[in-house]
Amino acid sequence: MTLDDAVRRIQPVDREIATQAQARLDRLTKPLGSLGRLEETAVRYAVITGEVKPNVPRGVVFTFAADHGVATEGVSAYPREVTPQMVLNFLRGGAGVNVLARHTGVEVRVVDIGVAYDFGSVPGLLHKKVMPGTNNLLVEPAMSREQARQALQVGVELATEAAREGIGLIGTGEMGIGNTTPSAAITAVMTGRPVAEVTGRGTGIDEAGHAHKVAVITQALDRHRPNRADAMDVLAKVGGLEIAGLAGLILGSAAARIPVVLDGFIAGAAALIAVGVQPLCRDYLIASHRSVERGHQAILDHLGLKPLLDLDLRLGEGTGACLGMGLVQASIKILTEMATFDEAGVSERD
Amino acid sequence: MTLDDAVRRIQPVDREIATQAQARLDRLTKPLGSLGRLEETAVRYAVITGEVKPNVPRGVVFTFAADHGVATEGVSAYPREVTPQMVLNFLRGGAGVNVLARHTGVEVRVVDIGVAYDFGSVPGLLHKKVMPGTNNLLVEPAMSREQARQALQVGVELATEAAREGIGLIGTGEMGIGNTTPSAAITAVMTGRPVAEVTGRGTGIDEAGHAHKVAVITQALDRHRPNRADAMDVLAKVGGLEIAGLAGLILGSAAARIPVVLDGFIAGAAALIAVGVQPLCRDYLIASHRSVERGHQAILDHLGLKPLLDLDLRLGEGTGACLGMGLVQASIKILTEMATFDEAGVSERD
Repeated sequence: MTLDDAVRRIQPVDREIATQAQARLDRLTKPLGSLGRLEETAVRYAVITGEVKPNVPRGVVFTFAADHGVATEGVSAYPREVTPQMVLNFLRGGAGVNVLARHTGVEVRVVDIGVAYDFGSVPGLLHKKVMPGTNNLLVEPAMSREQARQALQVGVELATEAAREGIGLIGTGEMGIGNTTPSAAITAVMTGRPVAEVTGRGTGIDEAGHAHKVAVITQALDRHRPNRADAMDVLAKVGGLEIAGLAGLILGSAAARIPVVLDGFIAGAAALIAVGVQPLCRDYLIASHRSVERGHQAILDHLGLKPLLDLDLRLGEGTGACLGMGLVQASIKILTEMATFDEAGVSERD
Repeated sequence: MTLDDAVRRIQPVDREIATQAQARLDRLTKPLGSLGRLEETAVRYAVITGEVKPNVPRGVVFTFAADHGVATEGVSAYPREVTPQMVLNFLRGGAGVNVLARHTGVEVRVVDIGVAYDFGSVPGLLHKKVMPGTNNLLVEPAMSREQARQALQVGVELATEAAREGIGLIGTGEMGIGNTTPSAAITAVMTGRPVAEVTGRGTGIDEAGHAHKVAVITQALDRHRPNRADAMDVLAKVGGLEIAGLAGLILGSAAARIPVVLDGFIAGAAALIAVGVQPLCRDYLIASHRSVERGHQAILDHLGLKPLLDLDLRLGEGTGACLGMGLVQASIKILTEMATFDEAGVSERD
């Protein structure tokens, strides 16, 4: 499926299903509404997929890795070689996302969409490199519009393939030293908030590093003047390849009616782009957690999403998404495995 | 182990271990502290058990069921026969707690500690009935001090047995039509807050029902004048048998250095009693979630606990505890399964 097909194919979700799913939840052996956000999440899953009694879906978290030209400006606490090193760590199963994915029974697929390193033919890695890292967005556009489109296309195709395999739940993950900088730039543009308000400490820079990061983003936005009404323009000028891949993944998943569980700040920036390209895809999103990263709340507010978890996470990789996917699966089991009052012979309220 | 033995055996937790566990977490391939409350929970588990690299524990949630004389005062939206009906639902695996326990790989043990129904020899049920429901606390003490002690002893013994089996994580669950009334009464006494402030809607009574419930509790406290400094007195006069069982379970678990994952409001009331009996047991508690039930926040504040989840749950049974136990297990896996920077060959920060 091409990007344009995906964008065209995305439909409004089926609100009728919500009534049916809630009616089933209300017949289960529990006080009305007493499972709170689990019930809400089950209904959301039903509405997206169109199934009132869905099977518990197989879940995959896609962890897109890419490098960022802007990392040379000293916006991160970690050196750039950490991106490929962590990719290898993902492939060996030693990273946070691997541990939490195993815990919740989710598969991790690692995608090289733009790492500045030649991995050769390392097994398990999905080779989808569009370019070996973006350009330095402080001095030139991060990528061309065509490169941004290619990276989006990678995400669309991975989602389409997953749909063909019967995957019913997709999570977003990423790795890319420096990637909170393009994410903050995108967030500032798409939400209209001041740069300082949406720029955080990333992996842990100090006060001076933070001021520098804000200055870099402000200068870049002054230079490129990305057009908020044209999400592709924003993505190309101040984005990242993994952000583009995630935005494509969201669009492709929505086209296939697969719910997307967002991780944190970087995923949120990708969602801003995806929703900019096709506003209907917003209803296919589930926010797993509220990140510590300043700026994430602005994204959640802008998208109208309420996260399931608030655990002070700021690791990325898809770690929060894995935990969120576990809760989505729990909510589906509530909807489909609990006994009704009739089945259990339990009296209803007086 | 007797109740008195348990109370004597509870030791202060080993704070030294926290430094060692955090040092390990800081060598793992992630920015320092970036897994937030998962790291904090892993440290808490290590501190309680004394193990820096613990095995992932087998978990059991104990769901204590009991009836309440005060239910005849019309303080609940559901009829009293729902207590035994739900016990049978638990044993058949159709209730919310069963679904979430299966989801997180936790075992459910159902305990009849005071249901006003003769179950005969139904398989799977732990028969520990102290009396067939409490007395109506509006007109007389809910139970005698001796009965309260017996119910506590049931919990202590179940925890001790679980420890012998190698169970490493215990969750609290309960079922008892009317049990938010004794829980609110206990909360008012032990936290010193006004009754109206800690009394909620339970399974879903209306405004008038709520006013009546507040009046019933206020009258009962005026009549019995439970002594806040004597938790056994409070428990006997305005408590419940499942609350007593849970308080005993907490004390027995703490004596065996097993972390206890609290469910919601009723579990919180039990924790107030357990901490009243032996203040050291507070450090063995992990709060799974913040309940919708008014009064739960007062308990969390009083105990100095910050819940892991906030999902608008108010079902009880141990549902929130199961989800919390899943997060505790995830946190232990982070501590023990993630690669270190050295192992993974990943560069540390600049």
